[in-house]
Amino acid sequence: MNTGELVELGQQLRVDSIRAAAAAGSGHPTSSMSAADLMAVLLARHFRYDFDRPDHPGNDRFVLSKGHASPLMYAAFKAAGALDDEELLTFRKLGSRLEGHPTPRRLPWVETATGSLGQGLPVGAGIALAGKRLDRSGYRVWVMCGDSELAEGSVWEAAEHAAYENLDNLTVLVDVNRLGQRGPTRHGHDLDAYARRFEAFGWHAVEVDGHDVDAVDRAYGEAVSTKGQPTVILARTLKGKGVEAVQDREGMHGKPLPGADEAIAELGGPRDLRVRVPEPPAGTPHTVPTGQAEPPRWEKGEEVATRNAFGEALTALGTVRGDVVVLDGEVGDSTRAEFFAKEHPDRYVECYIAEQQLVATAVGTATRGWVPYAATFAAFLTRAHDFIRMASISGAGVNLVGSHAGVAIGEDGPSQMGLEDLAMMRAVHGSTVLHPCDANQTARLVAAMADLDGIRYLRTSRGESPVIYGPDEEFPIGGSKVLRSSRQDRLTLLAAGVTVHEALAAADALAEEGIAVRVIDLYSVKPVDRDTLHRAAEETGCLVTVEDHHPEGGLGDAVLEAFTDGRPVPRLVRLAVRTMPGSASPAEQLHAAGIDAESIAAAGRLLVEQAIVP
Amino acid sequence: MNTGELVELGQQLRVDSIRAAAAAGSGHPTSSMSAADLMAVLLARHFRYDFDRPDHPGNDRFVLSKGHASPLMYAAFKAAGALDDEELLTFRKLGSRLEGHPTPRRLPWVETATGSLGQGLPVGAGIALAGKRLDRSGYRVWVMCGDSELAEGSVWEAAEHAAYENLDNLTVLVDVNRLGQRGPTRHGHDLDAYARRFEAFGWHAVEVDGHDVDAVDRAYGEAVSTKGQPTVILARTLKGKGVEAVQDREGMHGKPLPGADEAIAELGGPRDLRVRVPEPPAGTPHTVPTGQAEPPRWEKGEEVATRNAFGEALTALGTVRGDVVVLDGEVGDSTRAEFFAKEHPDRYVECYIAEQQLVATAVGTATRGWVPYAATFAAFLTRAHDFIRMASISGAGVNLVGSHAGVAIGEDGPSQMGLEDLAMMRAVHGSTVLHPCDANQTARLVAAMADLDGIRYLRTSRGESPVIYGPDEEFPIGGSKVLRSSRQDRLTLLAAGVTVHEALAAADALAEEGIAVRVIDLYSVKPVDRDTLHRAAEETGCLVTVEDHHPEGGLGDAVLEAFTDGRPVPRLVRLAVRTMPGSASPAEQLHAAGIDAESIAAAGRLLVEQAIVP
Repeated sequence: MNTGELVELGQQLRVDSIRAAAAAGSGHPTSSMSAADLMAVLLARHFRYDFDRPDHPGNDRFVLSKGHASPLMYAAFKAAGALDDEELLTFRKLGSRLEGHPTPRRLPWVETATGSLGQGLPVGAGIALAGKRLDRSGYRVWVMCGDSELAEGSVWEAAEHAAYENLDNLTVLVDVNRLGQRGPTRHGHDLDAYARRFEAFGWHAVEVDGHDVDAVDRAYGEAVSTKGQPTVILARTLKGKGVEAVQDREGMHGKPLPGADEAIAELGGPRDLRVRVPEPPAGTPHTVPTGQAEPPRWEKGEEVATRNAFGEALTALGTVRGDVVVLDGEVGDSTRAEFFAKEHPDRYVECYIAEQQLVATAVGTATRGWVPYAATFAAFLTRAHDFIRMASISGAGVNLVGSHAGVAIGEDGPSQMGLEDLAMMRAVHGSTVLHPCDANQTARLVAAMADLDGIRYLRTSRGESPVIYGPDEEFPIGGSKVLRSSRQDRLTLLAAGVTVHEALAAADALAEEGIAVRVIDLYSVKPVDRDTLHRAAEETGCLVTVEDHHPEGGLGDAVLEAFTDGRPVPRLVRLAVRTMPGSASPAEQLHAAGIDAESIAAAGRLLVEQAIVP
Repeated sequence: MNTGELVELGQQLRVDSIRAAAAAGSGHPTSSMSAADLMAVLLARHFRYDFDRPDHPGNDRFVLSKGHASPLMYAAFKAAGALDDEELLTFRKLGSRLEGHPTPRRLPWVETATGSLGQGLPVGAGIALAGKRLDRSGYRVWVMCGDSELAEGSVWEAAEHAAYENLDNLTVLVDVNRLGQRGPTRHGHDLDAYARRFEAFGWHAVEVDGHDVDAVDRAYGEAVSTKGQPTVILARTLKGKGVEAVQDREGMHGKPLPGADEAIAELGGPRDLRVRVPEPPAGTPHTVPTGQAEPPRWEKGEEVATRNAFGEALTALGTVRGDVVVLDGEVGDSTRAEFFAKEHPDRYVECYIAEQQLVATAVGTATRGWVPYAATFAAFLTRAHDFIRMASISGAGVNLVGSHAGVAIGEDGPSQMGLEDLAMMRAVHGSTVLHPCDANQTARLVAAMADLDGIRYLRTSRGESPVIYGPDEEFPIGGSKVLRSSRQDRLTLLAAGVTVHEALAAADALAEEGIAVRVIDLYSVKPVDRDTLHRAAEETGCLVTVEDHHPEGGLGDAVLEAFTDGRPVPRLVRLAVRTMPGSASPAEQLHAAGIDAESIAAAGRLLVEQAIVP
């Protein structure tokens, strides 16, 4: 396309954005209009993509970080021939693939769900990292950001990460239209302010008039030819560009244009330009060499921390499966992810203390078919909660591993204790939540989680605990293990992780007093083993959950999920961490929280004595 | 103190850090030793503080962002005469005030809990903002950071915020010891790399040898005399400084020194220097002028969005209470926090799209006695989950308001929907969680939450809903409202927010079919109204929860909390958002999720027809 055609294409993208929002009665046309010329030049001149083969390994990747500008993206897909006009006008309607904010669940040309600002660049950096270090392919990643979202810290985690990793296959286009949702941004049209920041972080920065298509074209060319560092293109634009009634005006965010017909006329009316998007170079899918490795095995009675078992099992898995990638939040020596680093340094990425980028890198590499395991302390995964939430909207398949669960970590105190991670991870749509109590169980679950759909979470413990299962035992997702059972059981103790061992000790103590209790290891917190819970409820009448977690949203609630279909519900007691811990030894912590063997036995005794259980 | 004494004081702080960790058998002495000279000079020469009056309004404020260096902080408190040596050696022991990571719950000289890295600067910026814009007092805020934690995006949210707000009362000391937990940091001892970043963000940067006490002293002086911008002091230091066996060596993080006695001897043995910390200038507590304002009132039957009621009630509260401060995440036009801005611009802070800084500013202003309300979309509060978690460890009293709850927002789609916020907020220790369904109820709760302890969360809705309560109705925290009730009730519908109106419509439809059902508005999700729930369970036998939230951790689980003490449990059914929404109208969304009136009525009918309820 020549300059005149590019200008026309920009106008078409504006018109189609306005038309889509008008048909929907909502949406963000003005945020689309500012970036229309940036999009036109990218699509016609620089983006290499086969819309018939979104999984083509040589395809460039485009991420719309300012996801509310979805009309622009859909207008571009139409111009590329991927959508027809009829579908464009289904925007935001029930059942349409064209959602208010784009998601790969619906549209194959969308890499990752956006709409929570400041996430597109981190995930794009993850894809670019995959291209550079894992796929070793020549595809480029193009991320379109708004200027407002540069206030998000996650953008600067990504900026640091991308420059450190020399991701010269990554280009960020910032649509600096100076207006956020509520009003002017901090820096308005001061492109230098943004350039200084990116350059300080090690980027190549180019400033450009975002409505001068030739200048934009040159800037993209400069980005492509820049080696050794990522490039940011800071484009001065006007929100609502081209329509006097809205152009560069406050209060015009996130609503259809008033007088859409006049606006379209002002832009010269509808067009039907079709873009021939350049084909990607031939590419081959990444190869994932596999090797032979025995999964680690432990003998019953050994004392092993589940975090150690995780590290060893992951290392073995990484030998067997060449598609496993491990991401560390600069705590690999604690989570034991570091074991993997020693064997498979090519597939280990140090993300430093930047948990949002940690999870974003997982999401980004997963879009390219890798199987990422991202590990940090369970407590610090809360830092990435919004990224995990968005990953579930993307349908991304990522493994998250949180170590240092609960008060059992001991002296470090509450800032380091994962006490709300089960609540956070259970409430993620479509998630799987696993909490093993011994080394062999951990090893099996680490391997099994790789092939599940959606977000998978494994919770590991800091301290050692005895191996209670043989190395050949199976642990299906959604299963449980009945560890003590008799026909005389008067209640059932339900535990996971460290509390399994406490529950077993409590059961043994109660048995000596003539009180039989059942003990079930609920290693699969979500999905939970409904059948076994129903049977325990019918046979013992009273369930007691014991968890090293706050009482809300964790094991107790997971158990209750099994009884919310109208069936009779057993009596319930939940033992959990109800007070704010301080520093103390692990044993003192468990005791203070009322979840050690002694406390569990006392609770069981009380229930029997008070005839709360029959 | 002269130079020689400052050097001695630094050595004393090292020795005491080593002694504390040795007595505890754990802790982070090497991270303390690198920063000991920075601390010595600060304490003896620049920090103005009355340890007998931690609430002195003129006191400077110190935040140890690298909270794992707590031994250094406690050693400094000892040198200042605030702690004795005996207490120093209780470090990390059960019941000690000297926790592994410092918390204001235990020690009055600690401003905010740290230990999750990258939070000290954001909270410190919040305190400095309070000093500058609210207290209008001369106190300074000193934040000590590690170098590793500069990888956290939250640091750059704070850097941007502090420079934009011209916080020249804020000084950040970065202990650049080049070694993180796992190994070298990205930039090692390249102080320039950090200086470039801070300067690009608008800071004054000073590079210094962190073991040259005179140079450090001059740097502090330069910070104090710098006007109009915050200052960062980048100090080149050695981890484990002064003890050959650990100095500048990898693998020495987070553990007591091997051979503590020899190490102490190498440092010249214990000392007992006492520092006379300079007194703060006389200061007066901030005045909070109050005025007269009628809280807003609405008549039954009016259609009002609860977010609008929030905005109006908050504005009136701001007139009555001069200590109310409102913080916006650049969505004030959506959350309606903007209403407050128009009336009380002096107490409105725009934090832009930086949710971590939004919550950190709330925590920071709360430490200075202000009553902050921080508002953004409920979905985006997940971005600040770790800050909320740490705020609860601090015992901070902050109000968080999440708008755009659930699928009821309609076309914008899942990225904008708060569907896990109740789970997140309920699992926060000591939190209060409120979810009003009408305007008058919202107004009452907005006022009531100001005086509660801990983290308080209010969930508001985007769309309009009918006013169903009179303007004089009371809504106690922990209460509920029984909206439909008869002796023939066959089940109880439990709802909050938008689902209250759907439940009422369902109950009316069922009543026409001769099926009486109870309806309860559970506006207080935590604490929940146990008595009313027990009565409903006894009288109707079956509870049906209806929530615009994922099924985990929200209203359903809140209700079940009332039945986990071993008492008989009613039958339970929970209606919640179980599938991934797309774009659609609010009514279509509620229907697709099975939580609209029609779906609720169908569920009720089914339960009766299948004789699941008697």
